[in-house]
Amino acid sequence: MKEDLLQSSDSLRSASPLKHVQHATFQEPLALERGGRLDRVQVAYETHGQLNQAADNAVLICHALSGDSHVAGHDETDDPGWWEILVGPDKYLDTNRYFVICPNLLGGCRGTTGPNSPDPATGRPYGPDFPEITIADIVEAQRRLLDHLGIQRLLGVIGGSMGGMQVLHWATAHPDRVRAAIPIAAAPRLTSQGLAFDVIGRNAITHDPNFRGGHYYDVQAGLTHGVFTPAFPVGGLAIARMIGHISYLSRQAMRNKFSHDRNRPRQVRSQFEKDTSVASYLAYQGDKFVERFDANSYILISRAMDGFDLGEGRQLAANLAPARCRWLVISFTNDWLFPPDQSRQIVDALLAGGKGVSYCNVRSGCGHDAFLLEEDLEAYGRLIGDFLNQTHAGGLTEEEPEEDAGGRIEHPDTSIFHGRRLDYDLLERVLREQGAGTESSVLDLGCGGGQMLLRLKRQGWRRLQGLEIDQAAVLSCVRRGIDAIHTDLNDGLPQFADKQFDFVLLSRTLQAVVDVQGVVEDMLRVGRRCVVSFPNFGFEPLRRMLSHQGRAPEAGVLKHKWYNTPNIRFFTIADFQDFCREKGAVVHEMVALNTETHREVTKDANRNADLAIFVISRP
Amino acid sequence: MKEDLLQSSDSLRSASPLKHVQHATFQEPLALERGGRLDRVQVAYETHGQLNQAADNAVLICHALSGDSHVAGHDETDDPGWWEILVGPDKYLDTNRYFVICPNLLGGCRGTTGPNSPDPATGRPYGPDFPEITIADIVEAQRRLLDHLGIQRLLGVIGGSMGGMQVLHWATAHPDRVRAAIPIAAAPRLTSQGLAFDVIGRNAITHDPNFRGGHYYDVQAGLTHGVFTPAFPVGGLAIARMIGHISYLSRQAMRNKFSHDRNRPRQVRSQFEKDTSVASYLAYQGDKFVERFDANSYILISRAMDGFDLGEGRQLAANLAPARCRWLVISFTNDWLFPPDQSRQIVDALLAGGKGVSYCNVRSGCGHDAFLLEEDLEAYGRLIGDFLNQTHAGGLTEEEPEEDAGGRIEHPDTSIFHGRRLDYDLLERVLREQGAGTESSVLDLGCGGGQMLLRLKRQGWRRLQGLEIDQAAVLSCVRRGIDAIHTDLNDGLPQFADKQFDFVLLSRTLQAVVDVQGVVEDMLRVGRRCVVSFPNFGFEPLRRMLSHQGRAPEAGVLKHKWYNTPNIRFFTIADFQDFCREKGAVVHEMVALNTETHREVTKDANRNADLAIFVISRP
Repeated sequence: MKEDLLQSSDSLRSASPLKHVQHATFQEPLALERGGRLDRVQVAYETHGQLNQAADNAVLICHALSGDSHVAGHDETDDPGWWEILVGPDKYLDTNRYFVICPNLLGGCRGTTGPNSPDPATGRPYGPDFPEITIADIVEAQRRLLDHLGIQRLLGVIGGSMGGMQVLHWATAHPDRVRAAIPIAAAPRLTSQGLAFDVIGRNAITHDPNFRGGHYYDVQAGLTHGVFTPAFPVGGLAIARMIGHISYLSRQAMRNKFSHDRNRPRQVRSQFEKDTSVASYLAYQGDKFVERFDANSYILISRAMDGFDLGEGRQLAANLAPARCRWLVISFTNDWLFPPDQSRQIVDALLAGGKGVSYCNVRSGCGHDAFLLEEDLEAYGRLIGDFLNQTHAGGLTEEEPEEDAGGRIEHPDTSIFHGRRLDYDLLERVLREQGAGTESSVLDLGCGGGQMLLRLKRQGWRRLQGLEIDQAAVLSCVRRGIDAIHTDLNDGLPQFADKQFDFVLLSRTLQAVVDVQGVVEDMLRVGRRCVVSFPNFGFEPLRRMLSHQGRAPEAGVLKHKWYNTPNIRFFTIADFQDFCREKGAVVHEMVALNTETHREVTKDANRNADLAIFVISRP
Repeated sequence: MKEDLLQSSDSLRSASPLKHVQHATFQEPLALERGGRLDRVQVAYETHGQLNQAADNAVLICHALSGDSHVAGHDETDDPGWWEILVGPDKYLDTNRYFVICPNLLGGCRGTTGPNSPDPATGRPYGPDFPEITIADIVEAQRRLLDHLGIQRLLGVIGGSMGGMQVLHWATAHPDRVRAAIPIAAAPRLTSQGLAFDVIGRNAITHDPNFRGGHYYDVQAGLTHGVFTPAFPVGGLAIARMIGHISYLSRQAMRNKFSHDRNRPRQVRSQFEKDTSVASYLAYQGDKFVERFDANSYILISRAMDGFDLGEGRQLAANLAPARCRWLVISFTNDWLFPPDQSRQIVDALLAGGKGVSYCNVRSGCGHDAFLLEEDLEAYGRLIGDFLNQTHAGGLTEEEPEEDAGGRIEHPDTSIFHGRRLDYDLLERVLREQGAGTESSVLDLGCGGGQMLLRLKRQGWRRLQGLEIDQAAVLSCVRRGIDAIHTDLNDGLPQFADKQFDFVLLSRTLQAVVDVQGVVEDMLRVGRRCVVSFPNFGFEPLRRMLSHQGRAPEAGVLKHKWYNTPNIRFFTIADFQDFCREKGAVVHEMVALNTETHREVTKDANRNADLAIFVISRP
């Protein structure tokens, strides 16, 4: 245990006075969602960068349970902020370009009106009499701040964890005021497990005898009946924080931090157990937290988080329906407090509502805290930066020439349409022949880096959505302003409604899919017309290689060795025709290609083509 | 929330006096591992069934952190025990056959000497002065009980969670006294995350002002300075228990229990938060626990658990080396407190030490508590029962005729050797030709239900180990007394030493493996001789089907449709010969078969055989 203690999300949050905080006070009372009201609400906030003339470069950052307005340092003499790695000049969230606003949330204890603020009616702290608040109330205080700052429309609203819940509310409650919503490691509601963590944390606080039902602000620390009594429930609040810390880290991250020196704790001064490395870490985090946080605030805000509930499935889709912004949803693979499947619920509900969404489930070892840590910054930071840039530029960045689309990601093995003008032309021809136009909606299954969709987009198509399994390819899509969902096709397409898309593309992917029947059934259900391309195993050189040489075939687009090919399904044009017949799919068109001669094949395609494109549908 | 509250592991533990408890008191002081000693140790225990004449049917059950001696009810008037579903007449752990002993562990608070017992030196409870104990001390008290009962050798020692740690110590500290060791949901040491849970639980107890440094036994509940004071730290102990309960359930299990009625809590009388279903559950579990458990015991025993550490890798293998028993290791897929990879560490260390092991990672939705719940009983209960029966019978049950080996599991798609006398004969011939005998060690990769290994075993072979991916097949192996490890071959064979086995078999599995090169490299490393069989894609009817009909080949053993075959690698005998050459493997022998004519093929095998058996090695 050395500097490990500093690697937590907490380490960057300053306990010292915040020098650059500004305050806005609202005269009009705030009527709260659950009843009650707050008079003369004050919001503490910090800003970075400059609002431009058009006032279209403002980005709102919503902090999580225990954060504050100090998202980043303002100069070299300032303390670093809690998202210092992301926010600043020339950083992913570039304050040279954007005007960044980060308020302390309502109910907090870092400058915005909260339980430790004086109640204007009495002049004494609200304490436990502070009225119950919700995420909607927190957002309402932020909305007033934006009015105060003269910002009608946000370029983006961004937040992780509970901050992501605020983003969800912003996008749906104020659809006219948000262009891009970026919920990170968020959820439509806490898991039952997450609720349980919060419940136990609050139980620890409220059962601390120094909590005194929340009336502890007037208490002086000292001796009571000969026993030392702290002025507030430090023990319970520290334990609540320790419980939180378990949930912020993945099991693997805890192993990496604490397993190698399990029995060599860091020397910390603490009344808590500290004889193992993990115990000393928890003691340190618990003790440090009570120096800067208020127990009543913790209870109030965690209850606001617990109460947030957009439901599941159809209910969630209905709740998200009012939103009209672009969406970038980010989760982290081993976050177990806000697990990726909850971000997927958000994504799926948006897709079900016909909205364009980008989603990346960032491969991470960190756990929930990942969005605050440097380890995965190159993925989530780039996503945020590129998405904001794309949104600010109006959707298309023209700088990148199409021909630059080179490299491994740009020509994935599972893509025929990408990288070759011939294939692009052919696909466009097929789409035209099938009556497609720029108003048609297209779903590209296995869209790679978004090359084909980008081509359509540049020609004015607007309703485009990709699905892609490779993280780097998803990042490429986002950089290009192509909406892509990071997903495995073998998981099916339950998020889409019947015939939701005019066209569904599946380009050279079917041969690499485990559940062929499931994927084809799904695309037939979701698309009015489906365009499927695949390598033809009936290609003459392949036949000859097996038949004459007695060797596993390799030729044309099937160019891998039998023992390391990504392809696992080998079938011919004739097989696929039989398959369509069996499954009740109508074949509208079939185009066959010889990729070696770059020619379309019109005679005996099952023998002469190494690639085929089918247009199929189910009536 | 209705009877959900009763579905926890805790629900079956009785808080009422235990009617059938017996006690043994040892005059000789117990010298403790970490120093200190205990005089006149008393062990509370219960027994079920009868010790037989040979005294070879005794099974010791080691309970977990908060268990006790009441593993099962003794008659209809008795309370059910904590493992009632497993232990009893005609149950999986059949008390008609076995003499079951379950002691309360040392340091406990349910009859065995612990912190709430009177210190013989003072006549007053030990309290916090009870000396530190370890798993070794707990086992030593159990060993004395066995001496007292006149049991020299246990048929089996079984325990889940912390009970599994006791099993690990039993098997290694007393190798002569254990025939079968069954650690369930266990670990060589707690994860850092698991440690963290324990640390926070203890912090909650020790920071409860009513803990009084552990000196609370003489305190009367009542008013102190006008404030109600409980007689012991009920708040802290309840919170520790709540934290435990989170870790016992999987996220999915919590979702199933609490998500549907999130805001409809059960009516419980409690001082804890109870306005959500999960809060009411935690409040109930916390309050109930303090009625039957002692806070000093909780601290003492959880510290014994935290201190247990057999290390990892080589150190773990060295620590397990003294064991001479049979092993059955069981984990549960979504146990995150004692995650399956920790059981795998135990298994791998045993395998590295050349020991026979059976291992099943039971597919479960429950989490750590799974081993106490009915949901997966059919898997883990059967494993325990069959393994004990096999051990008691001396390894072979002769009742089951070999020909009975029918059904889906018995003839898996990935097995050539199983189910056909021809294949058995051929394999045995190949083994004989390669100089094998009953003293040769054999590793069967993808052993199915253990048919081939059973055949060898019946002929007197003793050093047999299978690996198998299918859970039902692993259960079949255990029923037959064949050691099988539940694993995915794609994960490699890092647990085995170079040339650890005389023969490694890979029967008709290679064509279904993703990482062909990895699997072949691994088997060449681990086996002196490797016997590989696979379907030959060069078989004439397959060639013709592609070449003449233009269809994906189906014939011989490759009888599936292209879109749903379990096979993903298609290669010929000639391909495999090339592959061996490339990889520097020597081919010692090749036998080719036509399974349609049931004949060995000697001419132009690449065209005339649909199956091939290769014997290869790397010098």
